[in-house]
Amino acid sequence: MKTIQMTAKTPDIHALLARRKPQYSLEAPFYTNPGIFELDMELIFGKHWIYVGPEPSVPEAGDYITVEIGRTSVLIVRDDDMQVRAFHNVCRHRGSRLCQEQKGVVGNLVCPYHQWTYNLQGALMFAEHMGEQFDVSQHKLKPVHLRNIGGLLFICLADNPPSDIDDMARAMEPYIAPHRMADCKIAKQIDIIEDCNWKLTMENNRECYHCRANHPELTISLYEYGFGYAPNPENCEGLEQYQQTVKRRHAEWEALGLPSNELEHLDDRITGFRTERLPLDRAGQSQTMNAEVACKKLLGDFDEAALGGLSFWTQPNSWHHFMSDHIVTFTVLPISAEKTMVRTTWLVHKDAVEGRDYNLDNLTAVWVATNAQDRALVEQSQQGIRSDAYEPGPYSPFTEMLVEKFCNWYVNRLSALVE
Amino acid sequence: MKTIQMTAKTPDIHALLARRKPQYSLEAPFYTNPGIFELDMELIFGKHWIYVGPEPSVPEAGDYITVEIGRTSVLIVRDDDMQVRAFHNVCRHRGSRLCQEQKGVVGNLVCPYHQWTYNLQGALMFAEHMGEQFDVSQHKLKPVHLRNIGGLLFICLADNPPSDIDDMARAMEPYIAPHRMADCKIAKQIDIIEDCNWKLTMENNRECYHCRANHPELTISLYEYGFGYAPNPENCEGLEQYQQTVKRRHAEWEALGLPSNELEHLDDRITGFRTERLPLDRAGQSQTMNAEVACKKLLGDFDEAALGGLSFWTQPNSWHHFMSDHIVTFTVLPISAEKTMVRTTWLVHKDAVEGRDYNLDNLTAVWVATNAQDRALVEQSQQGIRSDAYEPGPYSPFTEMLVEKFCNWYVNRLSALVE
Amino acid sequence: MKTIQMTAKTPDIHALLARRKPQYSLEAPFYTNPGIFELDMELIFGKHWIYVGPEPSVPEAGDYITVEIGRTSVLIVRDDDMQVRAFHNVCRHRGSRLCQEQKGVVGNLVCPYHQWTYNLQGALMFAEHMGEQFDVSQHKLKPVHLRNIGGLLFICLADNPPSDIDDMARAMEPYIAPHRMADCKIAKQIDIIEDCNWKLTMENNRECYHCRANHPELTISLYEYGFGYAPNPENCEGLEQYQQTVKRRHAEWEALGLPSNELEHLDDRITGFRTERLPLDRAGQSQTMNAEVACKKLLGDFDEAALGGLSFWTQPNSWHHFMSDHIVTFTVLPISAEKTMVRTTWLVHKDAVEGRDYNLDNLTAVWVATNAQDRALVEQSQQGIRSDAYEPGPYSPFTEMLVEKFCNWYVNRLSALVE
Ligand code: FES
Ligand code: FES
Ligand code: FES
Ligand SMILES: [Fe+3]
Ligand SMILES: [Fe+3]
Ligand SMILES: [Fe+3]
Repeated sequence: MKTIQMTAKTPDIHALLARRKPQYSLEAPFYTNPGIFELDMELIFGKHWIYVGPEPSVPEAGDYITVEIGRTSVLIVRDDDMQVRAFHNVCRHRGSRLCQEQKGVVGNLVCPYHQWTYNLQGALMFAEHMGEQFDVSQHKLKPVHLRNIGGLLFICLADNPPSDIDDMARAMEPYIAPHRMADCKIAKQIDIIEDCNWKLTMENNRECYHCRANHPELTISLYEYGFGYAPNPENCEGLEQYQQTVKRRHAEWEALGLPSNELEHLDDRITGFRTERLPLDRAGQSQTMNAEVACKKLLGDFDEAALGGLSFWTQPNSWHHFMSDHIVTFTVLPISAEKTMVRTTWLVHKDAVEGRDYNLDNLTAVWVATNAQDRALVEQSQQGIRSDAYEPGPYSPFTEMLVEKFCNWYVNRLSALVE
Repeated sequence: MKTIQMTAKTPDIHALLARRKPQYSLEAPFYTNPGIFELDMELIFGKHWIYVGPEPSVPEAGDYITVEIGRTSVLIVRDDDMQVRAFHNVCRHRGSRLCQEQKGVVGNLVCPYHQWTYNLQGALMFAEHMGEQFDVSQHKLKPVHLRNIGGLLFICLADNPPSDIDDMARAMEPYIAPHRMADCKIAKQIDIIEDCNWKLTMENNRECYHCRANHPELTISLYEYGFGYAPNPENCEGLEQYQQTVKRRHAEWEALGLPSNELEHLDDRITGFRTERLPLDRAGQSQTMNAEVACKKLLGDFDEAALGGLSFWTQPNSWHHFMSDHIVTFTVLPISAEKTMVRTTWLVHKDAVEGRDYNLDNLTAVWVATNAQDRALVEQSQQGIRSDAYEPGPYSPFTEMLVEKFCNWYVNRLSALVE
Repeated sequence: MKTIQMTAKTPDIHALLARRKPQYSLEAPFYTNPGIFELDMELIFGKHWIYVGPEPSVPEAGDYITVEIGRTSVLIVRDDDMQVRAFHNVCRHRGSRLCQEQKGVVGNLVCPYHQWTYNLQGALMFAEHMGEQFDVSQHKLKPVHLRNIGGLLFICLADNPPSDIDDMARAMEPYIAPHRMADCKIAKQIDIIEDCNWKLTMENNRECYHCRANHPELTISLYEYGFGYAPNPENCEGLEQYQQTVKRRHAEWEALGLPSNELEHLDDRITGFRTERLPLDRAGQSQTMNAEVACKKLLGDFDEAALGGLSFWTQPNSWHHFMSDHIVTFTVLPISAEKTMVRTTWLVHKDAVEGRDYNLDNLTAVWVATNAQDRALVEQSQQGIRSDAYEPGPYSPFTEMLVEKFCNWYVNRLSALVE
């Protein structure tokens, strides 16, 4: 039995959670340990609402996508009554994956192995050679809970999903509705793999301390002051000016029927989230290389382009930017303790014509560059954290408050759920 | 010690074995858990007779092959007295692998590291610089048990191999003998790697429920009814006709001295096996794209080509098809919990001449295609079974009886041997 | 929780250490088990002096190299006062790796993530947005102990490094000094990855039993008798002659101020080492394809080329050959239980000019070839040792005495330090 692993010392998850030091980054095992990764998948990704993609991923009846939550494959399909449904992508016979592709179109769901055939409501319609005792009603596809919030699809793998998704839906729908996600189409979707724990990807998203030095493209349209600068003699005038701009814009946008004020519930609820409509710099229209719209055909009923950016962040795995001309939406899907997938989707009005109304390179330039920069940063973090010399370091009380809230939420949720 | 693994919950192998539900597929850990894989290697592959290849792999004195059973490399060599022997492929000095290649020819076995030299009976003949106290007789190569059944080589890594190999040999030799394996040569050997547990490879081999939809090439010569269809008004005539054909053919072949009746001992003995000579469809001669012989030079003394196919299945890891013109033989060698090697070997009469008597593409076409199709199916199964949503599903009482027998054998053997 | 590992049997490290049989190779788990690898990294590489490279790796102020000791990255940098220092390559903020490259030049050490800026003494000079409570003095880079012995850089990750490094330094400096490492430059550095445990790499280095059959290039200049041959009627004359040669040369070299006698402390101290200046065969000048110098510009004050080779071996991870014209130095850096990096560095006088004084291919030919041969040998060993059939084999009392001493040192040190 020579290659069997010797597990010299097992980290005690309760002790690790109990001794977490507020305002400091987490201890290394949270980012590196395969056992804690299993807990993350079981308790965080298995028991919370997970953003999986925008509704225009499945525009027509029979359209499906598959999404991998760790080892679990979820099938999202629009049925013949135009309802979007989610199922476990596992045949009830001998367990074959039903749909192999990331997206496709089907009439029924036919298992490739022995052709058990399910309809788009998940009922088993046909199974050959099973004999007369066999009861098809006992072999339906296993459903997965699904919520559509303003065109953003969230699933929950738990039997009893957190009910406070209702509060989030009620709060967020007025913010998102004017951008009319349902009338959008996917212009582009890109997956990247980051060699880091999923929490480093999320923490990186929750601060812009790193933006000025690392994101030349993103900071064309993003105000430096947006994520909290420590006040000092040199910047206090700029900070004050920025706050005035936000105030003025919020008033204008609210008058146009666009809710803009910050809602911040990142660590005080199970289904944590935050939103705010923020002004953009320069042309002020969109997250592009010149801060002007990337798509001439505006979303919804908009006739004004300079609507800033409505941002929406959810725990544990997503963020979204809604502008007047396009939407960018991100989902973070863990692969292993040290590997994570980030899927970025760009959406424009479904009537916009590529080449005429928008150009793909222009539409995607900022976030393609920004994602590549962030990937390098989080991978360098992962490498450093693997060292025995790493110890938790202090968060900035100005620019890393939302990272702290992410960690709070994570530690609270894990503490509440771990046995 | 931050990367040391936290083993939150260890599956209890006794509980898993005890609660196995008859007529249902196994629980997921049997297909995914590295610890159960270790048990499989120690108790199933370490204590049973394992098919490793056909005798014509080592036609001449000095010919050797190496076969990897998990981490253990076995050397099979024909000695100067023409006896086929098996040894552990490990030098008794500092443990270097002796023979690096999958096949080759040697005079003696010389370790590449410090040239300790063994003869083909495994005796250490020469070891430099070891001093006068050193006793060569204490450093022979470690032998491995080997049995040759009609030209099929089986090895057993246990000190005390199951003795019921004798019954299998006695029963099977009359079936195989007429095909004269010892007078064959290897025309082609192909290894493929499947990203699945070895038991999925075996279970897939034990049913043809999946054949009609997935194997257009194999079902040219294979009768659909051969693996058990549920009777229904549409197929009852065909089924009846098929059973008549089998009966008639068996009588003809038995009269020619070819034992043809089914012997079925898949789950009632330690060395489980099954055999039957089955008619082939259309030309009825061989598993080819037109069901005609692929090699004009027939095996043994045959002058009749339409002898159907003698199939032979063994637990835990092989199957074989003997036809009038060629033999196809398969060995399944596990690599890890989710990776498996399948080695396919095609044999023809040793006097057959490529290009004149047979054409390699024609000889191998059906099983090259079928193996690729089966690989896709078992890999899709593995992916589905990894999902937390997988649960064992029911086997067809008609077409999956032999899958059930494979699982019975496996569960029984593991239950008997696990501490 | 289906993929969580079942750790059926855990090797008991105390039992394994206690039952180690002298004069025999180690049991397999020492070469294959990931848990024992963790112990090796924690107790052997974490608590002993580890050779990391020659001083000319960082010739100028601001020059740095990074060295990976398992998961731990160490930064070695020459500060503005020309002192060589070592730090953990981990930012004290959120743990990012500071320097990404294997070598480079810096003014200050600026973290790529949020630009915390450290000087070359490791002090934190600048950290934006951290507020007034923040104390830079509490966030210095973590120092790593560093010793420079005749131009060879050793680091120790422990808080209290073994103090007997002083004895080794005192003993070795007179041997090494005449070769003037500090006046050398790196001509070439090559990393190779070996698929084996680091101890197999080291054991292979500690014997030349394998040299005659495997190293045609190295044995041009290396005397066969150098590592201990069993005396027998055929070789006793050659052996005697070799011992005379060694004696005569030692006398000549000592007279030239070159200490040459063997010092052997491989297993009787914590910081184990051995040295000896040995004659070379044929031209007797250097480890090259014709045993003549590879570089016309000799090292130090040498005007004599035929100075043999001063060899220096340290536990646990290095060996070095100093000749009149060049130095070759080797560091062994474990990656995982079955993967190891070997870094070879060739140095010549810093005033030597490539193309005029030396030719790179000629300089590196012997060890490039020898490393490739050794890689094949140790990888074959690793494969054999993974087999369940491997058991420890006997060492030659003549040619493998130093392998025995390596194993003694290793077993003693692990026994002393394991809890
Ligand atoms: S596994 Fe789906 S039909 Fe058999
Ligand atoms: S390991 Fe085979 S001779 Fe040394
Ligand atoms: S991690 Fe280095 S500055 Fe933030
Ligand atoms: Fe960023
Ligand atoms: Fe098949
Ligand atoms: Fe060597």
